Amino acid sequence: MGWKIIETNQLTPKDIDRQGNKLLTGNGYIGYRGTLEEFNKEQKTATIVSGLYDQVGNQWREPVNLPNGCFVQVLYKGEVLHALTSKVLEHTQSLDMQNAIHERETVFETTDGIRIAVHARRFASLARRHLICMEYSVSADRECEVDIETGIDGDVWDLNGPHLRNICAMEKDGLTSICAVTHENGIRVAVSEAITFTNARQFSGEERSADDFKILRKLNQVNIQNGFTFYKFISHCVGLESNNPLEDSRGMCQQAAELGFDGLFAEHAKFWSERWADCDIQIEGDFSAQQALRFSMYHLLSIVPMHTSAASIPARGMSGQMYKGAVFWDTEIFMLPFFTHVFPSMARNLLLYRYHTLDGARRKAKEYGYRGAFYAWESQDTGEDACTLFNVTDVFTNRPMRTYFRDKQVHISADIAYAFWKYYTSTGDVSIWRDGGAEVIFECARFFLSYTYFNPDKHRYEILDVTGPDEYHERVHNNAFTNRLVAHTFEVCLLVAACLQESFTEKYSELMNVLGFEPDLALISEMAQKLYRPDSDSPAAVIPQFDGYLRLENISIKTLLERKLHPHEYLGGGNGLAATTQIIKQADVILALYLFGEKYSSETKSINWEYYESRTEHGSSLSACSYSLVAAQIGKADWAYKYFMKTATIDLDGEGKEYVGTLYIGGTHPAGNGGAWMSAVFGLCGIHVSDEGISVNPRLPAHWTQVKLSMLFRGQRLRFTLNHTSVAIEMVNRAETSLPVSINRQNYVLPQTGALMISIN
Amino acid sequence: MGWKIIETNQLTPKDIDRQGNKLLTGNGYIGYRGTLEEFNKEQKTATIVSGLYDQVGNQWREPVNLPNGCFVQVLYKGEVLHALTSKVLEHTQSLDMQNAIHERETVFETTDGIRIAVHARRFASLARRHLICMEYSVSADRECEVDIETGIDGDVWDLNGPHLRNICAMEKDGLTSICAVTHENGIRVAVSEAITFTNARQFSGEERSADDFKILRKLNQVNIQNGFTFYKFISHCVGLESNNPLEDSRGMCQQAAELGFDGLFAEHAKFWSERWADCDIQIEGDFSAQQALRFSMYHLLSIVPMHTSAASIPARGMSGQMYKGAVFWDTEIFMLPFFTHVFPSMARNLLLYRYHTLDGARRKAKEYGYRGAFYAWESQDTGEDACTLFNVTDVFTNRPMRTYFRDKQVHISADIAYAFWKYYTSTGDVSIWRDGGAEVIFECARFFLSYTYFNPDKHRYEILDVTGPDEYHERVHNNAFTNRLVAHTFEVCLLVAACLQESFTEKYSELMNVLGFEPDLALISEMAQKLYRPDSDSPAAVIPQFDGYLRLENISIKTLLERKLHPHEYLGGGNGLAATTQIIKQADVILALYLFGEKYSSETKSINWEYYESRTEHGSSLSACSYSLVAAQIGKADWAYKYFMKTATIDLDGEGKEYVGTLYIGGTHPAGNGGAWMSAVFGLCGIHVSDEGISVNPRLPAHWTQVKLSMLFRGQRLRFTLNHTSVAIEMVNRAETSLPVSINRQNYVLPQTGALMISIN
Repeated sequence: MGWKIIETNQLTPKDIDRQGNKLLTGNGYIGYRGTLEEFNKEQKTATIVSGLYDQVGNQWREPVNLPNGCFVQVLYKGEVLHALTSKVLEHTQSLDMQNAIHERETVFETTDGIRIAVHARRFASLARRHLICMEYSVSADRECEVDIETGIDGDVWDLNGPHLRNICAMEKDGLTSICAVTHENGIRVAVSEAITFTNARQFSGEERSADDFKILRKLNQVNIQNGFTFYKFISHCVGLESNNPLEDSRGMCQQAAELGFDGLFAEHAKFWSERWADCDIQIEGDFSAQQALRFSMYHLLSIVPMHTSAASIPARGMSGQMYKGAVFWDTEIFMLPFFTHVFPSMARNLLLYRYHTLDGARRKAKEYGYRGAFYAWESQDTGEDACTLFNVTDVFTNRPMRTYFRDKQVHISADIAYAFWKYYTSTGDVSIWRDGGAEVIFECARFFLSYTYFNPDKHRYEILDVTGPDEYHERVHNNAFTNRLVAHTFEVCLLVAACLQESFTEKYSELMNVLGFEPDLALISEMAQKLYRPDSDSPAAVIPQFDGYLRLENISIKTLLERKLHPHEYLGGGNGLAATTQIIKQADVILALYLFGEKYSSETKSINWEYYESRTEHGSSLSACSYSLVAAQIGKADWAYKYFMKTATIDLDGEGKEYVGTLYIGGTHPAGNGGAWMSAVFGLCGIHVSDEGISVNPRLPAHWTQVKLSMLFRGQRLRFTLNHTSVAIEMVNRAETSLPVSINRQNYVLPQTGALMISIN
Repeated sequence: MGWKIIETNQLTPKDIDRQGNKLLTGNGYIGYRGTLEEFNKEQKTATIVSGLYDQVGNQWREPVNLPNGCFVQVLYKGEVLHALTSKVLEHTQSLDMQNAIHERETVFETTDGIRIAVHARRFASLARRHLICMEYSVSADRECEVDIETGIDGDVWDLNGPHLRNICAMEKDGLTSICAVTHENGIRVAVSEAITFTNARQFSGEERSADDFKILRKLNQVNIQNGFTFYKFISHCVGLESNNPLEDSRGMCQQAAELGFDGLFAEHAKFWSERWADCDIQIEGDFSAQQALRFSMYHLLSIVPMHTSAASIPARGMSGQMYKGAVFWDTEIFMLPFFTHVFPSMARNLLLYRYHTLDGARRKAKEYGYRGAFYAWESQDTGEDACTLFNVTDVFTNRPMRTYFRDKQVHISADIAYAFWKYYTSTGDVSIWRDGGAEVIFECARFFLSYTYFNPDKHRYEILDVTGPDEYHERVHNNAFTNRLVAHTFEVCLLVAACLQESFTEKYSELMNVLGFEPDLALISEMAQKLYRPDSDSPAAVIPQFDGYLRLENISIKTLLERKLHPHEYLGGGNGLAATTQIIKQADVILALYLFGEKYSSETKSINWEYYESRTEHGSSLSACSYSLVAAQIGKADWAYKYFMKTATIDLDGEGKEYVGTLYIGGTHPAGNGGAWMSAVFGLCGIHVSDEGISVNPRLPAHWTQVKLSMLFRGQRLRFTLNHTSVAIEMVNRAETSLPVSINRQNYVLPQTGALMISIN
């Protein structure tokens, strides 16, 4: 139950965009949009390869879309059977999340009344990351011959391309290939295809055709009355990791063809099965929630790069070139918790991506006159900031609008430090500090040291001129969220320094020498103590989001929206309608209340949740889960569930913004996926992990009869079974030390074997 | 030569606006626009009384326009003879600046061919500030009778009115009056009129008519073949200074009528003659410059309040309600030098206005979380800031645009401190500190103490988030101008504290006690030393106007203006075209180079003048004179003259912006008038006054054959005669001590009697 996403609708262009995102298959190295085999760039087919970016002229730098090796089309009497333009009697497109396989079945009717069924399955192999494997079957309800064209389509969809030049289509030893080089850095890429048949005698012969962008082989006069099936094995290689992408891709194709579809699928499915065994969450009593949560995890797992720490998860996953394929704070704050608690090695990889891009962050800090590491707001392969200073177009003048994402959202460096620390306290993996983590933390702290000012009149340090998570209010002073996060960065820096010195003394000395960091530690210590924290000024009061926030115009969202003169006008920026009001784009104070939940009283959380919830426009997919998480903590079960579902279904329903002007900004929302997991586990299930240990305070929705889930805490796998009357926790392996847990504020010690079961309520 | 401004043009509505400004008469208490007697609010008649402001509802607070007592109209066969609508054969309107009298002569032709000439003269008495006196004559070229209506028109022109309520028109003992109360504070106002005739037998009788807004007396069937002359004496009283404005205004009218026009004019002219004797500058060889410079001084003298220190000179003088009648930094930086060096008692009064409004400045500082005195950007009677947060309307959306004039142009408090110090060093008047000046300086310094941050990483204090003089770039960090001025405020604060302690020990102790200021002095001293001065970073290089300025888009003004989509779009503000470029509104760095000229090398001045001149749009009337002043110093004689004339003729040519949208923002530009004096005296004549003494380095335009001028330095009047071959300086009175002067960098001592004459070149 809840493993399959099935679409049976009549296809419209909007459905195609949405399903392209939703039914994506991927393995962290390649992501392939959930489009149909006969589609081309008009329907936004895309094969995104992790970590490969390209820039053409002054356009935005973005991921490269590789030639589409999944292309197949069936011709009946010379006419293509196409799901959008031919007569379709039945059409089903589905995704089996358990086995990570995409499937389509379409029954066409020809003008002379023949029913031709196309059935195709494909998966991006989790066992062999370069590979997409496809089974393609065609059958007819009577005597019938068709031509089938299969090959590689190099004429790809681009937002700011074309990125490939020197495109060359070729065939050798029964394998077809397209190779090319990228525009900016001349990286070689190659896509090759091998095909195999169940019965080669069913067709009259093969032809090859190739033009500048496409290579096809045509199976002529295929007799499909009793069905015809063939297999495609497509491999994708890029010069980032291969000295000869063409040869390597050909070799992998060849090998795959020899192994065969079934064998390859078996090993792929086994890998996925192992994953699900570790992470699946079973919700009884709520099919929609069950499906949405699995969907969320499926997407995260499909796009997490495991083969390298030179890449991370972009804000739109691998669903295309949207948002420049850039990595935002989304990864650290909204996706990392899932990986940290379920697949910590993946989390470690994602974190080390920030070590990989540390030099870029150093260059950015220097560019602005600071020291240390100021991470890119939109990070790609090198850590240079892909974010432009003019990131929005003014709808009234059609002129670029100066925005302060790139230069003022300094919290990015603190978000990264927060994620490292959370990973460390949750996994106990001290080696992360040795392997790059400490250097990242030190440089982030150093950046904030150079960004922070002392107010001699108020005897405190302050952080001025920043943009917090709420992007509708740019360039504010003492953003409560930012100040809190930066204070945390300073504190973590001191802890990590101590930890490194103790555990890896040599590394510590080396780093202190190379970075010349020791002199900065005293000031960081002082700043940690004396940094102004707007959120600790007045317990149990509304925390001002930034200096002067509460003096801004206090209007309702409705009133604000009524002032709009253009449906797509941006509410932030220089003259944005929200900028002079208390209406905010997304969770800001509320996110701080979640991230540092143990520092705030329940009353503070309640007061602030009430205040900000009515003023939040949720113009970002990062917003809802924060409101869900805090709602759960303050006993607002209805709201916690509502915002959880909003987060978990964002790509299922595809309700996100698709276009800004003519710019396609659709795509998947992995931060929403991660936020859904957080809302379910930390929010509704009430499992809270802190430096001290684990506490459980379930706030299950009334109709959830039971939840089973598993997560790791400091290397120990725990299985939870929660319902409305009891909490059971079981350690999967015998632990070395006993683990203290708190259930509904009572302390227990987990037995070293067997389960602890506690009745509640 | 050069004393009269004569207009003989056919009147158009635009001329009427322009001449209303240009031909203004005033005495610092009342200002009366240069309109014609038959005009009403459609032609923007205005009688502005100094220091009286009013607000209606949420509209802008602005000066009160009193009922118009100068109203006269002539009717021929029931038809009004009106310069705009009747047939006009000749029309001359003029201003005699020597005697400060306005004159008009109009020859009308009636439909039946009679030529009727109207001749009127009026002045705002410098001897009796409440009084406007008028002589009005009508004559015809043949037998002719007209009716003449004279009276008080209470239906006045308002931008954000109506400000008068309970308007009551009355007559008693041959005097007509209108009295009323202001809307906001219920201040009583009264305007009364007395008239006298040369020959009462020339008309058949008098009638009175009055409605809610107007009281008129009609002289019936006046025989004008041989001319008819009558006199009006109008007095204006307000409750700010009178317990019974109506009675007082009647009394003054009565007395004026008894004294008669000629006698009153004689005393008025004598007062003006004494003024001119002290301040006139005689330029030989350049009629236009001579006239423009006298025009500039005439306007400054017409609007400077001498009767009170509760008022100062608004940015649009007394020419109407434009700019809310508010006092800007214009007064301190651009007008004060003239007064300081020619009429120091007037300068003293203007400075003490800031003491009068100190509490308002304290309230504003507190409102924003600071200490000390943050002066209003737009100051009226109480020192509350009349500037709104939304001071510009976006032409694309017609929505108010958030601007940062009010809350970020902190340099206002430093400008005031600068003006006090300049006054003190130029006059030697130490009593100014005792009488309020020290308290103002201390509180300004304290404000900046609380505004300034310490950058612990760079070991310096910085001033963040300000708007400098160039309003196209809001919210910048370390504006070179602001930092320089604030450092000067700190330095001056320490000097004033020492001076006060020495000269007025008791006052010093009292202030320290009341203000609790002593503990702040140490920090002020440290800040004075360690405040970052962007202008002293790199000698002889372009001084960045603020952090990051030089990284902004570097385009020409032409390119910028070509990007405009709407002729009136504002170039600053949130999305302003200039904001992201190096194009600036007005002198900013260049003004600092002038104000602190002795701190910069000639090379630095040259480099920066060249750089910024080509990037300055001169969107403010404050801009040209700064470029003139620095151009003179660096040997750019042509530019110095060009920018001097631009400044000096601003209201003569009336080329300033008249409207923003439907908002009338025209009016006089007293800062331009003051700037013209500065450009002539300090720039072209090269007379430089500093703490050390006086230096003279003439840079006369080639066609100026000689300049004679007089100015005060520390109580000693000096007369200068400059030409291309010699400099002569004479002390008017025997001095107590000898005065060192420098001429073309040679040092001399002024003889105690007679003139020092030095050949140059």
